[in-house]
Amino acid sequence: MFYFNLNRFLMDFKIKGTDGKARVGELFLSRGSIRTPAFMPVGTQATVKAMLPENVKSLGADIILCNTYHLMLRPGENLIKKLGGLHKFMNWEKPILTDSGGFQVMSLSGLSQKSNEGVEFQSHFDGKKHFLNPEYSIKIQKTLGSDIIMCFDDCASFNSEKSDIALSMKRSMEWAVRSKEQFDLTDGGLLFGIQQGGIYEDLRDESTKRLIDIGFQGYALGGLAVGEPQNQMFKVLDASVSKFPIDKPRYLMGVGKPDDIVGAVLRGVDMFDCVLPTRSGRTGQALTRRGAVNIKNSRHKDDYRPIDPDCNCYTCLNYSRAYLHHVFKSGEIISSMLITWHNLHYYQELMSNIRDAIINKKLIEFINGFTKLQNSGDLSLI
Amino acid sequence: MFYFNLNRFLMDFKIKGTDGKARVGELFLSRGSIRTPAFMPVGTQATVKAMLPENVKSLGADIILCNTYHLMLRPGENLIKKLGGLHKFMNWEKPILTDSGGFQVMSLSGLSQKSNEGVEFQSHFDGKKHFLNPEYSIKIQKTLGSDIIMCFDDCASFNSEKSDIALSMKRSMEWAVRSKEQFDLTDGGLLFGIQQGGIYEDLRDESTKRLIDIGFQGYALGGLAVGEPQNQMFKVLDASVSKFPIDKPRYLMGVGKPDDIVGAVLRGVDMFDCVLPTRSGRTGQALTRRGAVNIKNSRHKDDYRPIDPDCNCYTCLNYSRAYLHHVFKSGEIISSMLITWHNLHYYQELMSNIRDAIINKKLIEFINGFTKLQNSGDLSLI
Repeated sequence: MFYFNLNRFLMDFKIKGTDGKARVGELFLSRGSIRTPAFMPVGTQATVKAMLPENVKSLGADIILCNTYHLMLRPGENLIKKLGGLHKFMNWEKPILTDSGGFQVMSLSGLSQKSNEGVEFQSHFDGKKHFLNPEYSIKIQKTLGSDIIMCFDDCASFNSEKSDIALSMKRSMEWAVRSKEQFDLTDGGLLFGIQQGGIYEDLRDESTKRLIDIGFQGYALGGLAVGEPQNQMFKVLDASVSKFPIDKPRYLMGVGKPDDIVGAVLRGVDMFDCVLPTRSGRTGQALTRRGAVNIKNSRHKDDYRPIDPDCNCYTCLNYSRAYLHHVFKSGEIISSMLITWHNLHYYQELMSNIRDAIINKKLIEFINGFTKLQNSGDLSLI
Repeated sequence: MFYFNLNRFLMDFKIKGTDGKARVGELFLSRGSIRTPAFMPVGTQATVKAMLPENVKSLGADIILCNTYHLMLRPGENLIKKLGGLHKFMNWEKPILTDSGGFQVMSLSGLSQKSNEGVEFQSHFDGKKHFLNPEYSIKIQKTLGSDIIMCFDDCASFNSEKSDIALSMKRSMEWAVRSKEQFDLTDGGLLFGIQQGGIYEDLRDESTKRLIDIGFQGYALGGLAVGEPQNQMFKVLDASVSKFPIDKPRYLMGVGKPDDIVGAVLRGVDMFDCVLPTRSGRTGQALTRRGAVNIKNSRHKDDYRPIDPDCNCYTCLNYSRAYLHHVFKSGEIISSMLITWHNLHYYQELMSNIRDAIINKKLIEFINGFTKLQNSGDLSLI
């Protein structure tokens, strides 16, 4: 039986402007279009933590990321399908990208056993044994109703020997072929390939060539921002991003800090995801154009000013640092709600400013201003 | 020095309709008017837990309750004043009623020592010693900028001997005099007296008489819903509510379950507060016209229906029980946000329906329907 995958031909990625290697684009999907460079808030377990989906949307997110690994274990992809799919389940009607689980089976689960066939792992929830391979990962992502499906890849740790990273990359490329074959069996979603190869240009190049041979609707860079210094990550981007097809979106997985994102956009990356703004929101860390504000710090306890006096988010318009300090110290849920809101606002505003700067061919100017402000130091001093 | 308390004369409580002993009224305060019978969501530590203030307001709350005990200990009333008062601090512009701390020093703090002068107690946060008495409690409530200030009272436990409850009531009445004297020294807010006396009609009557002699802008019933059966609480209400001045609001403190509220309205009570809808929201208990739905129960895990198919709240319009079960089990903050939202919606809708029923002289009919539905049992069966 052969299913004709219409989406592959309907997919449309329009480049609307460039500045050096940086691009502004729009990726048109059936559930809505994604303005790039785009930041995708992370909704691991079918919720962007401490936020209502309407508010995530109102801050400017065109797409969110959910995790195959978590959702297959709880509540299970078949249950979600029975309930009308992931979008309906979590009340998010815009596009969703699903991670393949390749990274999580290594980073989260206990005692995983890998072979060319796939990965056997123990659930970090209850220790039960589970199995993932390219075929099963793609099936799960299709069952969830994902809009952008990621290939199942093999993730080596960044301080492995080069020979191990090479083996891991080669296996990932074999799994990319199998992911594509499984993807093509049924209609629905786009499929992105994932480049691996650690910090080694030759391995990254080999990975890129093999992905292009297979042919994907988007190309991701995996295995970065996993502990290596930023300049090493940027070196990889310098060497490899422009080797991807120019007319396809490029996605840097799990990145990152605001300055990581700015530097990666400069090097031609279009899409990002990271838990930083949401996780920081729950640990009392507010991210701003002037760097991080640690709301736990007692110097905020009588500060009537908002997190960032120049920010127009709901939190900054309505609450003082003193209030946020108080509710954080008191263990109140509203602390996570308000700081996450601010952080996601900051990230989406950053992406919007980046897009404007590229369109106006002023990205370098923008980055200089951005860097100066980020390094201007402690917000308490302004 | 003598300050003329203008609010006392500006205070206006209009009775708009009655049905038996039940009344519909409107209490006009400078920060907005309160439609009675009213339910006040509890915002103990300057936040109605897991809710944004705008949403508390949109659900129909005209007033919330905050706790003197908690706020004096953290972050401190003087800090709140310095930051512009409690309303600005917590981004709630409508009226706030503050509890006096009388109940909390007994129920929450360690090793409290009571005398006629006041109560020495240990903070439940850090074990430090603190002191509260009528003068200090009223001062704190004024400093916070409270709209309705409660007298500092002495709370006996409900299973004390009658003689102890009598002593405690008499002390509360002496403290009511001192509360009033302190209140009159400065402008701002209304002052409500608190009736005590356990389940004893003679003690409650004595308390009422002494409060009326002192003269308050509202009258509260304290020491109820502290463990006694509902019919005993209703007996106290039957015997004592109508002895309060007819033109002043009556507030049953810390009550309660939906059927407690309905029964108390029938007996002439105008105002209520309770942690039940917010606390239940965080423990996975949804309150509905058909009784409680325990979302933790595994029978909800694949149920596509909302908590209550007849409910029009944000949660019921957008999320299935299966989703709520999933996010509760996953420890996600959105679980508390969504179930609290539903519960507060249900409470405010109940109050609105009660007010309509009184205006239309159909309260008994309403209560019969309410009781039938509440007892119709398990929502899973409908």
